[in-house]
Amino acid sequence: MSLNLQTHTEHFTNPLYLESGRILEPYDITYETYGTLNEEKTNVIVVCHALTGSHHAAGIYEGESKAGWWDGLIGPDKAIDTNKYFVICSNVIGSCFGSTGPISTQHPHHEPYRYKFPVISVKDMVKAQRILFDRLDIHRVEAIIGGSMGGMQALQFAIHYPNFANKVIALATTHATQPWAIAFNKVAQEAILKDPEFQQGYYDPEVIKEQGLSGMAVGRMAGHISFLSHESMNKKFGRDYKRTDGLYELFGKFQVESYLEYNGYNFTKWFDPLSYLYITKAINIYDLSRGFDSLSDALDKVSADLHLISFKNDLLFRDFEMKEIADEMTKLGKKNFDYFCVESDYGHDAFLVELEKFDRYITEVLDG
Amino acid sequence: MSLNLQTHTEHFTNPLYLESGRILEPYDITYETYGTLNEEKTNVIVVCHALTGSHHAAGIYEGESKAGWWDGLIGPDKAIDTNKYFVICSNVIGSCFGSTGPISTQHPHHEPYRYKFPVISVKDMVKAQRILFDRLDIHRVEAIIGGSMGGMQALQFAIHYPNFANKVIALATTHATQPWAIAFNKVAQEAILKDPEFQQGYYDPEVIKEQGLSGMAVGRMAGHISFLSHESMNKKFGRDYKRTDGLYELFGKFQVESYLEYNGYNFTKWFDPLSYLYITKAINIYDLSRGFDSLSDALDKVSADLHLISFKNDLLFRDFEMKEIADEMTKLGKKNFDYFCVESDYGHDAFLVELEKFDRYITEVLDG
Repeated sequence: MSLNLQTHTEHFTNPLYLESGRILEPYDITYETYGTLNEEKTNVIVVCHALTGSHHAAGIYEGESKAGWWDGLIGPDKAIDTNKYFVICSNVIGSCFGSTGPISTQHPHHEPYRYKFPVISVKDMVKAQRILFDRLDIHRVEAIIGGSMGGMQALQFAIHYPNFANKVIALATTHATQPWAIAFNKVAQEAILKDPEFQQGYYDPEVIKEQGLSGMAVGRMAGHISFLSHESMNKKFGRDYKRTDGLYELFGKFQVESYLEYNGYNFTKWFDPLSYLYITKAINIYDLSRGFDSLSDALDKVSADLHLISFKNDLLFRDFEMKEIADEMTKLGKKNFDYFCVESDYGHDAFLVELEKFDRYITEVLDG
Repeated sequence: MSLNLQTHTEHFTNPLYLESGRILEPYDITYETYGTLNEEKTNVIVVCHALTGSHHAAGIYEGESKAGWWDGLIGPDKAIDTNKYFVICSNVIGSCFGSTGPISTQHPHHEPYRYKFPVISVKDMVKAQRILFDRLDIHRVEAIIGGSMGGMQALQFAIHYPNFANKVIALATTHATQPWAIAFNKVAQEAILKDPEFQQGYYDPEVIKEQGLSGMAVGRMAGHISFLSHESMNKKFGRDYKRTDGLYELFGKFQVESYLEYNGYNFTKWFDPLSYLYITKAINIYDLSRGFDSLSDALDKVSADLHLISFKNDLLFRDFEMKEIADEMTKLGKKNFDYFCVESDYGHDAFLVELEKFDRYITEVLDG
């Protein structure tokens, strides 16, 4: 059977009440589906994307060569089997791939929001998705799954909509963003803000797309450090030099430098800097226990089967952060969870690249 | 007894032949001494500074409040006891505190070198110091000690001038800079280069001193991440917020953000961006085995007693990097070394701040 990839955008005119007390109105949500919804609507799996991801999680668009970000996991006969399941992945609000974000036109003006866009939280992203699913007449799903910021969304779903999903699978994430991760985001934010081309948000998106924004490139380079690990960097690059005759040139390049440069500058051509500021802000303020007395109180709400997957050498969200969730669940006397630390040297990016290390586990959870 | 702090600058007109094949001529070396040289000149200890350090390792200058960077370790009755020892610390060439660097005037022109300054290596820094000591009629010293890039210098001394020191103590360093550390340097270099105020090195140093250079500030923020550890960040900052009412403001601040901002911007007022480019380059190309068939061949030259001190949660120079040196020494059948991993949660900066965890060890080595 085919992937049956479909991309849609839904428009909402009802106000979205945000955690900050502010309102987003109107707003769009762009989403993608794979597989076919069964008649009873009991085969839905929600996939949540990370910071720079989008609704395009699987398949290849016509005329393009690059597949969606979790294509290895989603499709016919893959771990998230589209022969069985109807998969929905939506672009989070605040992002820049179709859902309303800071670069969207602010109604009724004809100008982008820019800094007038309200600060959104991961909880707000989840709330907007819940409203989208309502619109699609989907009121309960088989599973919600996501890694990194996608894992944060999955956990927020588990706590704030405890009856919405039968299973929640959160990978490479945390219960509250730690200072280490906030620090990396700070470097990126500061690099963007101080880039004169950014013009306090009044940049020309077309110019940015062509030339890139060096501030965001620098920030993204720092991000890439946090996505890898000492081990994966040693394996990938070691001390290899691009041109051995350039060792004593001031700007000669180690392989790791070329990698950061290429990925940093390439990134600025496809991601919006205002969205980067807003989404990193959402990640920074993410804390499952906000609004509760404690993390324990928050986790007490969970009624779905909760599956926690961490990665051994993840330097962005450490394995012990996921373990802390598991420990709290144990203390609460909950039985409906498990915690699995994947042996991996890759670092945070493992949830995107080392699929073979956890795809069977995902299959077991979904079939279980 | 007093510290007997003295600051001097020596001028050299003989060419300094650099590892790159280029020549530095003439050049100055600024250095500081503490304690008193005994008649036999047998009580000299050489202290080597790190990336942004200087010759000012101990004591407080008149009218200032901040002490030298290793003041807790150097002084009367301290681990490096100036009642007994005559301590010399010199500013490395390429730096910006008196020794010749890229912002120095290029003879016979009246303009700074800027990019015309040759790329220097840690080996070159050490060679220049050896020439300084010759000038001071010091031909053998009791010990050489340094951390981070200072540790690199200490190790280079041990290999290239095997008969110069009785004891070599290297802390929080490596035998060759790994891609992880190079990556952090890359972020800083790119941030400096892309800052329009940097003007390809044609900035006005006075303007920089007053206003700071936001590119270098961003780069330094990334550096600070590598100097700390997850554990120390959690202890220092946790998720504390500077103003709790600002959580939903786009640019509200977590404590960790304020810390990075303060330290990043403050740094740009006292360190030169061209020196930062040149010294990080020297660190990137540092590799003890260069010019030898292997690390083992290089270490085979060591004749001083070698003392290797690593720090448990150092994320910049991992403990196993120091351990690799120790392992090679063992394989070579050498007996004149020891390796000691300090239990510390602090991260790389531990060699500057957790002195109480290793100062007794230093005393034992020096008195032994």
